[in-house]
Amino acid sequence: NATAKAALGRATWKLLHTMTLRYPETPSPDEREALDSYFHLLSRLYPCGECAAEFQQLLAKYPPQTSSRKAASLWLCDVHNKVNKRLGHAQFDCAHLDAEYDCGC
Amino acid sequence: NATAKAALGRATWKLLHTMTLRYPETPSPDEREALDSYFHLLSRLYPCGECAAEFQQLLAKYPPQTSSRKAASLWLCDVHNKVNKRLGHAQFDCAHLDAEYDCGC
Ligand SMILES: Cc1cc2nc3c(=O)[nH]c(=O)nc-3n(C[C@H](O)[C@H](O)[C@H](O)COP(=O)(O)OP(=O)(O)OC[C@H]3O[C@@H](n4cnc5c(N)ncnc54)[C@H](O)[C@@H]3O)c2cc1C
Ligand SMILES: Cc1cc2nc3c(=O)[nH]c(=O)nc-3n(C[C@H](O)[C@H](O)[C@H](O)COP(=O)(O)OP(=O)(O)OC[C@H]3O[C@@H](n4cnc5c(N)ncnc54)[C@H](O)[C@@H]3O)c2cc1C
Repeated sequence: NATAKAALGRATWKLLHTMTLRYPETPSPDEREALDSYFHLLSRLYPCGECAAEFQQLLAKYPPQTSSRKAASLWLCDVHNKVNKRLGHAQFDCAHLDAEYDCGC
Repeated sequence: NATAKAALGRATWKLLHTMTLRYPETPSPDEREALDSYFHLLSRLYPCGECAAEFQQLLAKYPPQTSSRKAASLWLCDVHNKVNKRLGHAQFDCAHLDAEYDCGC
């Protein structure tokens, strides 16, 4: 069921990008640890097993950047673009992150 | 921007329910720890600050049930229904979880 898998992916990317764009500008060590752990746990628990395995390899190669909101959101945009490339999807211009992911909260 | 907040909520619930419904039937201690940590980290990192605060209180009162797929998915359905109640949304019949969240993976 490729439609359900794609819908799950879209929902997940929405949460993840919005999260990094609301992450503190100047995170504490504790907040940095939280974001790093969050991505690693997600890569174990993500419900599409094949996707989870690919995501674990990506995280090993490109560990989460947690030093600031900007670092985290650009890191995630870059990782998402690597997934896009593998799947033959268009690249996203990371300069447009803020306009795309306004959560209004 | 209430529309964006609602769309973020829908995306997040979709990921979370699909995740618990793919969680192992018989998890290892390590897998139980991963799911518990995941929910606690999400409650800190969730991009809607007001929602995150409410979610933290819910988790304190109703800690994640991680002993099996069934326990985890019914626990999350129940927690989501508590959020629905607070927001004046309809209750969901947790007997319909499997039909609703087929991720096709
Ligand atoms: C961690 C993870 C791993 C995945 N691995 C796989 C896999 O191995 N195999 C598989 O088939 N599917 C995988 N998926 C699903 C896949 O990435 C897509 O979500 C799915 O194919 C739907 O694609 P889409 O073209 O609708 O847009 P998506 O890639 O879901 O993107 C949703 C929207 O985000 C925006 N966007 C696109 N690129 C970026 C970017 N770089 N930064 C910010 N915003 C962007 C665009 O507006 C786009 O419409 C994975 C999903 C996740 C979350
Ligand atoms: C952790 C968390 C905390 C939140 N806290 C707040 C808050 O404090 N204030 C606020 O305004 N918004 C909050 N939200 C957003 C809110 O829960 C809704 O997502 C949003 O209002 C959109 O509601 P909706 O009626 O479209 O359906 P949602 O509640 O988003 O549900 C999406 C779909 O899931 C299904 N569903 C409904 N109930 C259940 C259930 N119990 N189990 C399984 N599936 C179900 C239905 O098909 C429904 O259409 C929170 C979201 C999350 C993830």
